Amino acid sequence: MITAFEKTVPFYDVDPMRVMWHGNYVKYMEEARCAFLAERNMTYNDMEKYGYAFPVVELKVKYIRPCVFGQRLIIKTRLDACDSFLVFKYEFVDAETGEKLCKAQTKQMCVCLKTKESLFEIPERIRKQLGGK
Amino acid sequence: MITAFEKTVPFYDVDPMRVMWHGNYVKYMEEARCAFLAERNMTYNDMEKYGYAFPVVELKVKYIRPCVFGQRLIIKTRLDACDSFLVFKYEFVDAETGEKLCKAQTKQMCVCLKTKESLFEIPERIRKQLGGK
Amino acid sequence: MITAFEKTVPFYDVDPMRVMWHGNYVKYMEEARCAFLAERNMTYNDMEKYGYAFPVVELKVKYIRPCVFGQRLIIKTRLDACDSFLVFKYEFVDAETGEKLCKAQTKQMCVCLKTKESLFEIPERIRKQLGGK
Amino acid sequence: MITAFEKTVPFYDVDPMRVMWHGNYVKYMEEARCAFLAERNMTYNDMEKYGYAFPVVELKVKYIRPCVFGQRLIIKTRLDACDSFLVFKYEFVDAETGEKLCKAQTKQMCVCLKTKESLFEIPERIRKQLGGK
Repeated sequence: MITAFEKTVPFYDVDPMRVMWHGNYVKYMEEARCAFLAERNMTYNDMEKYGYAFPVVELKVKYIRPCVFGQRLIIKTRLDACDSFLVFKYEFVDAETGEKLCKAQTKQMCVCLKTKESLFEIPERIRKQLGGK
Repeated sequence: MITAFEKTVPFYDVDPMRVMWHGNYVKYMEEARCAFLAERNMTYNDMEKYGYAFPVVELKVKYIRPCVFGQRLIIKTRLDACDSFLVFKYEFVDAETGEKLCKAQTKQMCVCLKTKESLFEIPERIRKQLGGK
Repeated sequence: MITAFEKTVPFYDVDPMRVMWHGNYVKYMEEARCAFLAERNMTYNDMEKYGYAFPVVELKVKYIRPCVFGQRLIIKTRLDACDSFLVFKYEFVDAETGEKLCKAQTKQMCVCLKTKESLFEIPERIRKQLGGK
Repeated sequence: MITAFEKTVPFYDVDPMRVMWHGNYVKYMEEARCAFLAERNMTYNDMEKYGYAFPVVELKVKYIRPCVFGQRLIIKTRLDACDSFLVFKYEFVDAETGEKLCKAQTKQMCVCLKTKESLFEIPERIRKQLGGK
């Protein structure tokens, strides 16, 4: 139920303090989430074809240990809720030592692309495919 | 006690759904925070000269209304706590209508650059200059 | 005929060598170009309304002196050609000393949004408004 | 002599025209270059240990075909010159069709980290390890 996404910290994401700049984690979270969705055959493009978008409405990140240039990270992603919202939880660990580096969470709302309306329920088709109960 | 920082949403920060990509808010929050600090004569460079760095250890964002290309935003920043941690709160509003677009918060720890140790207290010098009690 | 766009180098655009990361200049060039276009009442949104997009097909940058965190830059933009392509030239200078920091150039093609065809001529309406001969 | 680096276009790098934003290619070029260097046991960190940095002094990109979200790219990197400067050439192709998408080039100068002086010659140690003549 967990998708592990590997990422090597690129030079351009590292700041003058020689650690990955804190805003860049959000990019990796999205890549990890897309890997999770791809494994379940439900990419952003699929969602769009079905007529939905899933904008992020809430974001929480706890930074535990800094990441450095060239460090190999594993981002473990799991779907924590899939009823009113899509809630994903992320754990960043060092690929070699397994040391925990960061914990994060995103909450996504479902929007109908045709009507532009917010739905406060994840459509069944998507819920089932993502393995939500 | 609030610093208002103005920013126009650039094209390159807008995603295929034609709204500002959610991770980019974190960049503007840092610019707004730097504007807040500059107004109080305490830039990152000053902090470093005094021997400290202030890594972000926690980040929370609530997205209320999407932002679009060319939209003029005001990011209002205030210091919410300045004892064990630096806690900043941010409010994104539309520069013309004043409509609330986003609320966010960052928590920064103080690290001594020489010893690399985490201090669980903001140094008095910095606290006073930032207007913390 | 030149638009001067001011930009302060943000922390998040600075790399571990403590200079602005070289890829980030391209972002500022786009902001400077958009400022140029806005001054002539021809934003990307206007272009789109007229049915055109102008993808960048060529980019050249010469880095002369590094930029550092907090440095105020002026990016001077001028339209160098406006016949088959839109060609903009950019000069980055230090806002205080006027020292030249970077020279760059972009070439944009016109694409018809309806037919998706490349036009090898800038439409007259746009050419006139941008002050091309 | 060529290093092939694979990259899948992430959502956050795609712009409102639904193609990868042109400035983002520069990020992938750096990742591809770092993969090239890593294969030859000469990372940025190694270079720094030897006392050198290699800032990019020139950048040229020709965009041939747009890239879209989720597209798998191969970036082929080769060292084109290694005497006064490090010159890398890059070719972006679609991972499945092999279609050519972009051609680019970077030129890097050698700087001595101790003296901050520009060297107009690539140090022999580095030249040999990179397979330059």
